[in-house]
Amino acid sequence: MLLGSIEAGGTKFVCAVGNNDYQIVDSIVIKTTTPEETFEKTINFFKKYEDLAALSISSFGPIEIRKKSSKYGYITDTPKKGWSNVNFLGTIKDAFNVPIYWTTDVNGSVYGEYINFQKNGKDLDSIVYYTIGTGVGAGIIINGKFIGDMGHPELGHVKLKRHLDDLNFKGICPYHKDCLEGLVSGPTFEKRVGKKGQDVPLTNHVWDIMAYYVAQAAIQMTLTFRPEKIIFGGGVVSETFLKKVRAEFEKLLNGYITIDNVDDYIIMPLIDDNGSATYGNFALASSLINKN
Amino acid sequence: MLLGSIEAGGTKFVCAVGNNDYQIVDSIVIKTTTPEETFEKTINFFKKYEDLAALSISSFGPIEIRKKSSKYGYITDTPKKGWSNVNFLGTIKDAFNVPIYWTTDVNGSVYGEYINFQKNGKDLDSIVYYTIGTGVGAGIIINGKFIGDMGHPELGHVKLKRHLDDLNFKGICPYHKDCLEGLVSGPTFEKRVGKKGQDVPLTNHVWDIMAYYVAQAAIQMTLTFRPEKIIFGGGVVSETFLKKVRAEFEKLLNGYITIDNVDDYIIMPLIDDNGSATYGNFALASSLINKN
Repeated sequence: MLLGSIEAGGTKFVCAVGNNDYQIVDSIVIKTTTPEETFEKTINFFKKYEDLAALSISSFGPIEIRKKSSKYGYITDTPKKGWSNVNFLGTIKDAFNVPIYWTTDVNGSVYGEYINFQKNGKDLDSIVYYTIGTGVGAGIIINGKFIGDMGHPELGHVKLKRHLDDLNFKGICPYHKDCLEGLVSGPTFEKRVGKKGQDVPLTNHVWDIMAYYVAQAAIQMTLTFRPEKIIFGGGVVSETFLKKVRAEFEKLLNGYITIDNVDDYIIMPLIDDNGSATYGNFALASSLINKN
Repeated sequence: MLLGSIEAGGTKFVCAVGNNDYQIVDSIVIKTTTPEETFEKTINFFKKYEDLAALSISSFGPIEIRKKSSKYGYITDTPKKGWSNVNFLGTIKDAFNVPIYWTTDVNGSVYGEYINFQKNGKDLDSIVYYTIGTGVGAGIIINGKFIGDMGHPELGHVKLKRHLDDLNFKGICPYHKDCLEGLVSGPTFEKRVGKKGQDVPLTNHVWDIMAYYVAQAAIQMTLTFRPEKIIFGGGVVSETFLKKVRAEFEKLLNGYITIDNVDDYIIMPLIDDNGSATYGNFALASSLINKN
């Protein structure tokens, strides 16, 4: 029996087939071009595996996740050209007669990290996973379940207190200018310092400003959910950066509630090689089989 | 069979006894003085009712709600003098041999509003209730359950983008200065304009500044939970003020996600006379009986 994972991003699709232990048996990276071409390559990859028992898709969005909506399974109004109002789930369903799970990219990732904790004997109930890359988003699990019924969280778009050394930066979100995503996503580096984030040394003050904002996101989640872990993944995040985030977090929280050990609370993904979503997808696909 | 409600605030305790239909049979308002005196009067009130089958306490805080904590049932480190580290639940338990529910004041209120919707045929799954008064807090119900396992939400203490006309106001939160509570709680009126909120006409620009912040709180909850309703209660809130909040909310959200009707989404409590918590307590007390 094999499980299928589609981690659908705006830049690339990572497709993988895994076994019962969620180990990857085969995988492929497909460039995200037109929906037609990308779906065709995706379907061709999985068609090789007759033993495929279930699939899970964790997709970039926004996507429709309300089952009673006529647009359930669609990518809705994404800024990604050609991908608005695209029936993603329906297209894959038409090609495979297996149960298919449908959720957001960050939900795939948070579920992967959650299951990884369980498998390693850490019985956590509540974790939050932020990705900070081209965009910013978060997936949340509370009591073993995703948050988001009427729609998935959009935590990239909250407002924050502006850093005093950053008041002249307008922010780059096309909808909200200086929301979280508009202030800390990868492309902000070009706008602020004229080069890519990977070329900006962590000693540059811009990283302190970033940490101030990301710490506020962690504060929001802490005061809303009191989760057991807040995980930060995505291209912008490194352990050195998270050190700054933790320091800002403690300064901003000011002892208001007790966090036992912040080094153990604000962390990077434990699954290697950006594998959280694939691992999560295997587990979500597997959950569909157990159900039937 | 009678149900008991203790709505414990820092200024007053509202105690009530209700019937099966959650109608108030008797009630009393007790000034919050020392714990000893206040608890004694509370206990004396309920002792009159031999038919009391269950009680629910919704208390000011912060309180300990983790059942495995040795301090479960305590008010923890409140700034309210004499009330830190007080075993509230234990004291009431010693006096009454009935099941007792223990939660936060805002959870009592959000539960009351939730049950009221259910009783009126509106099958909502997810609502948020903010109180904006002497302090600011919120209770959240998602899928019929409270959010908050490791501890209750503390949504009064999130950071916000500062209003450009308000940059000189430092905020009054003893922990965080300009968190939500530090910017919009009732006592901010004295600090900003030198008189009490009730004496500041709604045409004063300070109300626009307040609305800008409260709208950001509504945005945070919207992007986190996509709830079906966000309810604002407490002394600072009026329908005229909420009109301003809705306008700011729509401006800030900028059509990013669809809210069908904002007038129906950001609302005042539907239960009259600040009765949400009492009603919620009756329902929570009743839930303990059905369980047994």
